[in-house]
Amino acid sequence: MSQKLNTPKGTRDFSSFDLKKREYLLNILKNCFKAFNFQEIQTPSFENLTTLTGKYGDEEDNLMFKILSSGDKIKKADTEALKNNNLTKFSNSLSDKALRYDLTVPLSRFVSQNLNNLSFPFKRFQTQLVWRAERPQRGRYREFLQCDVDIIGESNILNEVECIKIYDTVFKRLSMPKVNLRINNRQILDGISQLMNLDSVNEIAPVLDKSDKIGYEGVIKKLTEKNISDSSINQLKFFLELKGSNQDKINSIRAKFTSNNISIDGVDLLEKIINTSQKFNLNNINLIFDLSLARGLSYYTGTIIEVSSPDEYNIGSIGGGGRYDNLVQENNPRLSGFGISFGFDRICLILDELNLFPNNLDSSKSFLFLNFGLDKIDKLPVFIDKIREKNITCEIYPSENKIKKQMDYANQKGINYVVIIGEDELKNSIFKIKDMSNGTESTFNLNDIVSEIEKLS
Amino acid sequence: MSQKLNTPKGTRDFSSFDLKKREYLLNILKNCFKAFNFQEIQTPSFENLTTLTGKYGDEEDNLMFKILSSGDKIKKADTEALKNNNLTKFSNSLSDKALRYDLTVPLSRFVSQNLNNLSFPFKRFQTQLVWRAERPQRGRYREFLQCDVDIIGESNILNEVECIKIYDTVFKRLSMPKVNLRINNRQILDGISQLMNLDSVNEIAPVLDKSDKIGYEGVIKKLTEKNISDSSINQLKFFLELKGSNQDKINSIRAKFTSNNISIDGVDLLEKIINTSQKFNLNNINLIFDLSLARGLSYYTGTIIEVSSPDEYNIGSIGGGGRYDNLVQENNPRLSGFGISFGFDRICLILDELNLFPNNLDSSKSFLFLNFGLDKIDKLPVFIDKIREKNITCEIYPSENKIKKQMDYANQKGINYVVIIGEDELKNSIFKIKDMSNGTESTFNLNDIVSEIEKLS
Repeated sequence: MSQKLNTPKGTRDFSSFDLKKREYLLNILKNCFKAFNFQEIQTPSFENLTTLTGKYGDEEDNLMFKILSSGDKIKKADTEALKNNNLTKFSNSLSDKALRYDLTVPLSRFVSQNLNNLSFPFKRFQTQLVWRAERPQRGRYREFLQCDVDIIGESNILNEVECIKIYDTVFKRLSMPKVNLRINNRQILDGISQLMNLDSVNEIAPVLDKSDKIGYEGVIKKLTEKNISDSSINQLKFFLELKGSNQDKINSIRAKFTSNNISIDGVDLLEKIINTSQKFNLNNINLIFDLSLARGLSYYTGTIIEVSSPDEYNIGSIGGGGRYDNLVQENNPRLSGFGISFGFDRICLILDELNLFPNNLDSSKSFLFLNFGLDKIDKLPVFIDKIREKNITCEIYPSENKIKKQMDYANQKGINYVVIIGEDELKNSIFKIKDMSNGTESTFNLNDIVSEIEKLS
Repeated sequence: MSQKLNTPKGTRDFSSFDLKKREYLLNILKNCFKAFNFQEIQTPSFENLTTLTGKYGDEEDNLMFKILSSGDKIKKADTEALKNNNLTKFSNSLSDKALRYDLTVPLSRFVSQNLNNLSFPFKRFQTQLVWRAERPQRGRYREFLQCDVDIIGESNILNEVECIKIYDTVFKRLSMPKVNLRINNRQILDGISQLMNLDSVNEIAPVLDKSDKIGYEGVIKKLTEKNISDSSINQLKFFLELKGSNQDKINSIRAKFTSNNISIDGVDLLEKIINTSQKFNLNNINLIFDLSLARGLSYYTGTIIEVSSPDEYNIGSIGGGGRYDNLVQENNPRLSGFGISFGFDRICLILDELNLFPNNLDSSKSFLFLNFGLDKIDKLPVFIDKIREKNITCEIYPSENKIKKQMDYANQKGINYVVIIGEDELKNSIFKIKDMSNGTESTFNLNDIVSEIEKLS
């Protein structure tokens, strides 16, 4: 098959069957967000590059899909940069827009732009596509749906707690097995990196983030390879080797930060979040304080959380979020934000794999009128019109084809009932309905066609 | 304001208020498409360039948003082409994907790719964004929503008739004023261009398409400027000057095509469509045979239609479509297709301008629990949880702020009821509800909180 017949790498088509499942999940998410009184917004698919770059981290910036400037603008191509192999500079000379990489940075742009029209705390949800030029793999696509809720302009820990409760509510409504929600705080990680004599937590964050894949030993090995000193690594080991309950861990590390107020704050906040969450009756979530959770995106400044897929079908993280204090920048004082994201496509895969989609996603009935020649039945269009007015799905076979072919079409399309008004029926002012599930035919008076079909629908 | 604070040119954010209107319109469209038994599909936002180019016309190809190749691929930049000012070649060396320009070409790719899994006639609807690098103007954006229905694999005129009826049904459900639906046929235009001694109808189509803006005189003037001979223009004048009913026009032109079977076919098809449509009880549509309708996109081969906005608010075309016989190419015999499109954003503007959106787009009630300190009411999270389980919108103010500030928030957000459980209320096991529409307060037993709130919601 030639290239042009395929979807681009990492992207998919969705059939009506797929879409019914996706609609089911999306409705549960949206209804839940609304129940918590978040308000929906939508933003454009692409943003100015100046809005997007420098927010996520260098590696992430390179994974954006940039849009090639159109018309004469590409004459500005910086061919010198190309010669010098400075590909970032070259590509930036060809583009001033990129497709959304997440929904958080567009939100911060939205808030900055509408500062005077919004009331705070501003609670919004958003369910839109994002695009990342990553290597596709199971559950990871280049175009995927993200479902986010964020609260801007409020730093109280109740925001964290409510968002954890949103995860819990959604998973309960989906009948999902219990999942682990790991929680940590960037201020604690900052304290650890100071104890390790590092310039920034970002020196260890990317390695820590791999800990669920490479394990504790793997993390230590990778850090050694990065020339981090043994004494620094020993500091880290203390934290990573902590065992026991969340409260045990909190107690153990509090003593380590005696002189670091910011990290002590982080510990206090974390403790409050965990204790308050317990009042919120979590059914589907184990809340786990995990000191190895770092979250790559560089805009996080406080609480960070990540939701693992259930043990029954392990497909990596299915959600995550955190607090960001510096993203909504064009304001003084800056507006603190907290938000979480649902990995829609991975959750879809889990529901599929664990058979959690309801059996009857679409229970509405469909009717096919056989076509014996439109000219023979002047009233047929009027009947059909009246039936459709009641939002009942019906169609007339689009040509006067052989009846066998028309019936094949009904079978293949999963039509529930075939309506027959042939010459004989017309003569006797009757019509027949064939139930395609069992082949039985029933006969009715033609005058009653709308009401009889309504009864069956 | 700095550039980064804005949406890119020709794009928009949508507030929750906007989105409720859009949801109303989208639901009417989708329910109508479903009633006609079209099945939804979705395709990726971008397609391989090989899929898209050469289908629309050169001018349109230049209006696509191309995606800059990522990573090392941009090293393939054809700097020679840039030097020679061959910008199309240069940009094609930097890109192998582009954002969707319409929904028809992606559909034809989808059908070709899934030929063996689909049953024909294949009736699909699709409501997704498309992107065009056009100059933005009133009702014209660079990112906009298209809503399409198409039937693939069937050439019977009943397809045309049903699609015209879909327009009629949607507009009726929207309570729109009557609109003109202009219809023509490319085979007739081919016949005219032959009578004019032109190589192709495309020599006059772009000018004809402007006729609703520049008028009959303007068309003649532009064609003269294009060095089309007087005798050719006189041939065209015969057609453009035809007056009378649709049937009058059909009768007049039939005689002109005595030796041109393809054009005679076109006239016959058009006549059948118009006559059959009359049986379908059109309420909101005037069907007008308009020989000046050409439709720019080069993939159309037969029937073409276009819907004008109502006289009450003239904003240009709000929909259009046509028959395309050569788009689904990877099959022998080729599959004929017919489809129509709704210009969602322009219809939204019309509904807004003519005050046709229902007054109560969102009638659900919202509740705000004042925050007097979470530690004081252990049961509060449980109450809220139970209320949300019933999909009732409620929230607790996220911090223990001054009551005045909490009430301001409720006012600004349009909260319907504020729930008060302060120290006094707790002591007496009661709670109060303040109706924000009139300020009245009612008192209830705390044990009845869930049922009382349910009554109000």
